[in-house]
Amino acid sequence: MRGLLVGRFQPFHLGHLATVRWIREHRDEPLLLGIGSAQESYTWANPFTAGERFEMIDRTLQAEGISRVQCVPLPDIDRHAQWVAYVESMLPPFRHVYTNNPLTRLLFERAGHPVEPVPWADRARAEGATIRQELARTGSAEGLPLPAAVAAYLGEIDGAARLVRLRPNGAGGAPTA
Amino acid sequence: MRGLLVGRFQPFHLGHLATVRWIREHRDEPLLLGIGSAQESYTWANPFTAGERFEMIDRTLQAEGISRVQCVPLPDIDRHAQWVAYVESMLPPFRHVYTNNPLTRLLFERAGHPVEPVPWADRARAEGATIRQELARTGSAEGLPLPAAVAAYLGEIDGAARLVRLRPNGAGGAPTA
Amino acid sequence: MRGLLVGRFQPFHLGHLATVRWIREHRDEPLLLGIGSAQESYTWANPFTAGERFEMIDRTLQAEGISRVQCVPLPDIDRHAQWVAYVESMLPPFRHVYTNNPLTRLLFERAGHPVEPVPWADRARAEGATIRQELARTGSAEGLPLPAAVAAYLGEIDGAARLVRLRPNGAGGAPTA
Amino acid sequence: MRGLLVGRFQPFHLGHLATVRWIREHRDEPLLLGIGSAQESYTWANPFTAGERFEMIDRTLQAEGISRVQCVPLPDIDRHAQWVAYVESMLPPFRHVYTNNPLTRLLFERAGHPVEPVPWADRARAEGATIRQELARTGSAEGLPLPAAVAAYLGEIDGAARLVRLRPNGAGGAPTA
Amino acid sequence: MRGLLVGRFQPFHLGHLATVRWIREHRDEPLLLGIGSAQESYTWANPFTAGERFEMIDRTLQAEGISRVQCVPLPDIDRHAQWVAYVESMLPPFRHVYTNNPLTRLLFERAGHPVEPVPWADRARAEGATIRQELARTGSAEGLPLPAAVAAYLGEIDGAARLVRLRPNGAGGAPTA
Amino acid sequence: MRGLLVGRFQPFHLGHLATVRWIREHRDEPLLLGIGSAQESYTWANPFTAGERFEMIDRTLQAEGISRVQCVPLPDIDRHAQWVAYVESMLPPFRHVYTNNPLTRLLFERAGHPVEPVPWADRARAEGATIRQELARTGSAEGLPLPAAVAAYLGEIDGAARLVRLRPNGAGGAPTA
Repeated sequence: MRGLLVGRFQPFHLGHLATVRWIREHRDEPLLLGIGSAQESYTWANPFTAGERFEMIDRTLQAEGISRVQCVPLPDIDRHAQWVAYVESMLPPFRHVYTNNPLTRLLFERAGHPVEPVPWADRARAEGATIRQELARTGSAEGLPLPAAVAAYLGEIDGAARLVRLRPNGAGGAPTA
Repeated sequence: MRGLLVGRFQPFHLGHLATVRWIREHRDEPLLLGIGSAQESYTWANPFTAGERFEMIDRTLQAEGISRVQCVPLPDIDRHAQWVAYVESMLPPFRHVYTNNPLTRLLFERAGHPVEPVPWADRARAEGATIRQELARTGSAEGLPLPAAVAAYLGEIDGAARLVRLRPNGAGGAPTA
Repeated sequence: MRGLLVGRFQPFHLGHLATVRWIREHRDEPLLLGIGSAQESYTWANPFTAGERFEMIDRTLQAEGISRVQCVPLPDIDRHAQWVAYVESMLPPFRHVYTNNPLTRLLFERAGHPVEPVPWADRARAEGATIRQELARTGSAEGLPLPAAVAAYLGEIDGAARLVRLRPNGAGGAPTA
Repeated sequence: MRGLLVGRFQPFHLGHLATVRWIREHRDEPLLLGIGSAQESYTWANPFTAGERFEMIDRTLQAEGISRVQCVPLPDIDRHAQWVAYVESMLPPFRHVYTNNPLTRLLFERAGHPVEPVPWADRARAEGATIRQELARTGSAEGLPLPAAVAAYLGEIDGAARLVRLRPNGAGGAPTA
Repeated sequence: MRGLLVGRFQPFHLGHLATVRWIREHRDEPLLLGIGSAQESYTWANPFTAGERFEMIDRTLQAEGISRVQCVPLPDIDRHAQWVAYVESMLPPFRHVYTNNPLTRLLFERAGHPVEPVPWADRARAEGATIRQELARTGSAEGLPLPAAVAAYLGEIDGAARLVRLRPNGAGGAPTA
Repeated sequence: MRGLLVGRFQPFHLGHLATVRWIREHRDEPLLLGIGSAQESYTWANPFTAGERFEMIDRTLQAEGISRVQCVPLPDIDRHAQWVAYVESMLPPFRHVYTNNPLTRLLFERAGHPVEPVPWADRARAEGATIRQELARTGSAEGLPLPAAVAAYLGEIDGAARLVRLRPNGAGGAPTA
């Protein structure tokens, strides 16, 4: 039976990688990586498409020689009471859920899934929000707690420049003039 | 012809009960209770499902011996210009609308419904936001301005513990790792 | 604990009434009537709004002296794998489900609800599709297997005339010129 | 005050043009052309995008020297009870509605708009469904009851070839392998 | 080939008018005005329906003698990665896009459209947010940087009074009691 | 660069397997399997959830020793003009698309993707619709053109019994009484 780790991975960073490695080492089961808020992209909180995040993870896992991990984009449904039923219908069978998020724990426990906390190496630095801020501030992925494959990919797609443009300045919201 | 009172009832508190009682005493017509944002649950602002809110109201009305009141869950449509047409299509015929909310008043008046303000006993305390805050802070429904039936029901479903978990801490949003 | 009967009630007919009466007589529990496809109206298959169907049922139950029955409009979500979780989140707690529909049975049994078949008096005649056809053909509710209160209400809202206009003639679909 | 004519215009044909001309001649008011099912395209019933239909109409009106007509794409909302409120919120103020469709008449009359029937020159031939069939059968717009500007535009965008590909053959539905 | 200017126009003000005039003077091509967030209305950030905004623009252009400009309401789709494909499917063919918004520029450039910055006369004052604030504060459109036709129209529809009612006071969100 | 094959895989059969094998043999690139209509399940045309289809494919590929293939559920968006932009945003970068479906070919070619036809071994028998019919008729997966792993999995989840219940009998549509 598989395990499940859900995240937004905006971007996939060293904290995520440490977590995936920890699960692969402690559990003899394949791992599903649910890419949450998959419909979002080109916003300050969700700058990268689900496909770009998929690619970041794929390249990293290959570079690190980590196998038996599958990515699945999960568009939001915005109805928490149905969320577990939704995830269960989109993913192949899974049992253990790995999370430190209280809501995720609440919803999966309520549905009968065993939920386990995960180590989160160097959380202070390896945090999506902090990394996005730094990308926009310096215009570069250098020195950030990212897997080498992710840093390289951000270079290819001009990721830092995208963050610079998306930085909120009071406007935000839908694209307009 | 029926009257209509719309609220989110997160949770149903003594201010709501006083309002329902006032309407039942002053108007000789059945009352519809529209449970707004019915699709929401397990969020800080909307912790309880529409069904749980329905149950809170049902138990309270029974305990208080109040009759001729019907609950109807109303999922949001997020398009104000169509909102009254939507509500009219979901509910049996109604005429008077009871509200202190300026937007609700504006939309129903524009559609030709007579709108009346309601008394709101002890508003300072009996306010959904304040009650949710207190539930999360103390982890208990004790001493809050709630009908006895609601306090008991919150005990049965571990309502206060849910609020503790949903309390925003910078994360918020969709469930993730 | 409540029981649940889901239907579209287009319109509420004598077969529905016999079923409700049978449940009220054999079960000592309140009954929820879920009004399915609640978002639909003014189509050939779903001519009446959820609110009009609510009114038909309300008047009939009052005329027949049937109590402890509550109507709840249920807009479709079009995702069967989440449907039971959705219904559970919209309704107050219920356990038994009454249905003769194989899909409804399948979905609720899979979620652990006991499901019971219901008698359906004189099904051949008391069938929504047949009744809608007859309303459009004769332009009148007379002689149809409808509760008196429903027949009267259809008169008030010009229900038969609506069916005449909605009868498909190759056009159908969204409103156009 | 403006008038309103709603259609899907798949494609805009001589029947539509005759109707527009008739309205412009008999009414001294600007005309809104609502492009219905605007979200649809690349299906057998709705082969052209709203933008392509807009372009067909725009070119035709210019070629014919017809002024004071404005196109507005109208995505479906699939909730008839709210449809008029929706249209009213998307369009600048209008009063008269021109239609031969019984449902459109029913919905607008119910909302208080005066509704008038329109002449429909040579309906047998100038019918969207017939024209789409012919486009797919012959692979050409020649000889069809279309304004010259529309026939020319269909040539530019390979419209007939599109219809050939979209013709249903038992497959239909969402794009797959 | 047409040009495109997208805005929310809440309300259409002198900055917008200056921009439209500049484009009409410097480009010999028709101009499309995309009315963004068209589904929104009766909120603090989007008080006016798409139809009301359409009317504001229409009256202003007529009063100013500006021609070859067409308004098109654009409901949001909330998926930035598909937004350009969406806009292209709703509008007749366009090429140049006029905007000062970094996200709009990013999305259209990525899709191959040439994007040009626009002058924005007296931005400090002629800003939607500032104007809405002033309308709510003074209850009047007098003295605000609005075209005369817009100020007059706001008088007709009681626009300032609407803003007074929509002003956020901690409540906000969906209409309730 | 990856290739892409989109299908509904209701269920994954020998024709699909032959196609996957053919692509893996002729192309030295990883393959993405897009599971179309991923939001659908428990209907006659789409009996299995995306997760169940994912599992069928996963087990088969493992049993057959086929590697470098990744499954991705793709919920429908029902807007063909945006469909390729949607697929591109959900999937990691891909270039070649494999399909025999004319609409899929049309949409991807229009967006610049090279599209190639695929062999479809023994199409007459290995067709989703035929297989679903047979599952419902015989109540068993025996003798059907399915990979052994799929037949076994259908046994585990009572797949044939599900088809028996979903077989249309004039009712169909949303779950009701």
